[in-house]
Amino acid sequence: MPAPHLQSYKNRAAKHSNPAARALLRCMEAKKSNLAVSVDVTTTKDFFDIIEAVAPYVCLIKTHVDILEDWNPGVTTRLQHLSREHNFLIFEDRKFADIGNTVALQYSSGLYKISSWAHIVNAHPVPGPSIITGLASVGMKLQEERGLLLLAEMSTKGALTIGSYTVEAVRMAREHRDFVIGFIAQHRMESIGLSGTDDVVDEDFLILAPGVGLDSKGDAMGQQYRTPTEVVTQCGCDVIIVGRGIIGIGRDIDAEKVKEQARRYQTAGWEAYEKRIVTNQLLGE
Amino acid sequence: MPAPHLQSYKNRAAKHSNPAARALLRCMEAKKSNLAVSVDVTTTKDFFDIIEAVAPYVCLIKTHVDILEDWNPGVTTRLQHLSREHNFLIFEDRKFADIGNTVALQYSSGLYKISSWAHIVNAHPVPGPSIITGLASVGMKLQEERGLLLLAEMSTKGALTIGSYTVEAVRMAREHRDFVIGFIAQHRMESIGLSGTDDVVDEDFLILAPGVGLDSKGDAMGQQYRTPTEVVTQCGCDVIIVGRGIIGIGRDIDAEKVKEQARRYQTAGWEAYEKRIVTNQLLGE
Repeated sequence: MPAPHLQSYKNRAAKHSNPAARALLRCMEAKKSNLAVSVDVTTTKDFFDIIEAVAPYVCLIKTHVDILEDWNPGVTTRLQHLSREHNFLIFEDRKFADIGNTVALQYSSGLYKISSWAHIVNAHPVPGPSIITGLASVGMKLQEERGLLLLAEMSTKGALTIGSYTVEAVRMAREHRDFVIGFIAQHRMESIGLSGTDDVVDEDFLILAPGVGLDSKGDAMGQQYRTPTEVVTQCGCDVIIVGRGIIGIGRDIDAEKVKEQARRYQTAGWEAYEKRIVTNQLLGE
Repeated sequence: MPAPHLQSYKNRAAKHSNPAARALLRCMEAKKSNLAVSVDVTTTKDFFDIIEAVAPYVCLIKTHVDILEDWNPGVTTRLQHLSREHNFLIFEDRKFADIGNTVALQYSSGLYKISSWAHIVNAHPVPGPSIITGLASVGMKLQEERGLLLLAEMSTKGALTIGSYTVEAVRMAREHRDFVIGFIAQHRMESIGLSGTDDVVDEDFLILAPGVGLDSKGDAMGQQYRTPTEVVTQCGCDVIIVGRGIIGIGRDIDAEKVKEQARRYQTAGWEAYEKRIVTNQLLGE
């Protein structure tokens, strides 16, 4: 069996054990898009202006609902409606990072009730495996498509997601493959932390890579950028996460410009994916 | 100069460079309390029932406002009022864990506007130093007492806050001592990550220790407990953070029981502190 990233999204969708991962892979194949857009804005007007502009081009919308100044319960209702209408999944970039009991409440409760509308959330592995079991105690009980990504790597300067940190993150994920569908990372994780007794035949972790840009190399606050070719073709990541490259400063949205950039990144991401799997298809997948 | 934890809170308050740290140390001395109560509940009724019961006995109230089902802007107004009336500081246990640009927005914006009411917040060092500069770009601009704690250690099973992770956390803090006032940790950090060129004469990091309990050793979700004597006298931590030991399951609050437990932990924490500094005072601080 070829490594996951040498198989088509379609084939992986047919085999994945987690419903949220299946839904995402099917959507990627259907829309020919491995593009996630990061909607990091502070007003619901800008939020929906951007989402309505990029919706046809994305497989995933990444949100930070806690920075919206004028959030109200109608925001998540409208977001879910758009998700169904335009066929994309919702990823709340909450970066859970607390003990099991607390993250279970942060995921299910409070004003945002994230588990009721976000297909995918993420967490830092730093508190140990209890963060996964805490979140899974909520997400796995729902009849909805729910999955968790672990932050195995970060793209900021001086990030501590190195060495044994990344190894342990992958091991934790491997122990909880029913709920952990992959990683926020910069490259493939299959070879990391493997022991001789691990059963990895059906292992298929999705790699979602932030810090993707076609025009800029970084910002003043430590963010560093790479191109879709580097991220998808060379490093084998599955989804490119693009923020400012598409939404600009995120205020007074020019919908036509945002659409044009989204199309440009969708094309670049998909071509990078096609280049990656063609070798394997020539060999007869 | 003796190590910070061998000096009195009063002496440390007189010398600390950060206004939030000074305010906390002064409050500890004035109330003879190194007790922080963790108010992890999901309704504002339970939230304020607990805070009103424990207020006379604490130096700090630790909140998770994002798990309150019925949060509204009046909650933070009332909390600030209680903080002034009963002389305690507010610590929002947000565990920021994102890139600089995002944490700056999460701290200042959204519904919660945490920077407008929380004296103290905390962050994971995992994204690297940009998380500190991002938060400091908000907190240091305010005319209020604001400080940041880094999570150098966690008390859960299998936590990844070990080895070089903790070393790097302390180094980052040392580089940003104007805003980083200390650590969420299990013991002192002075000796960690020191290089020969570090100027640490005035270094005074507060150590706030979670996972403190007098009656229980742990829970089913990976939390592990230690006593005030272990935490304060033996390990030199400055503030004990107590949750379920005082608030129980956090529903249908019996104010008298909660008060009694708070008094009990206040006494235990203060006695543990007095035992710690007495040796040094005998030697003539």
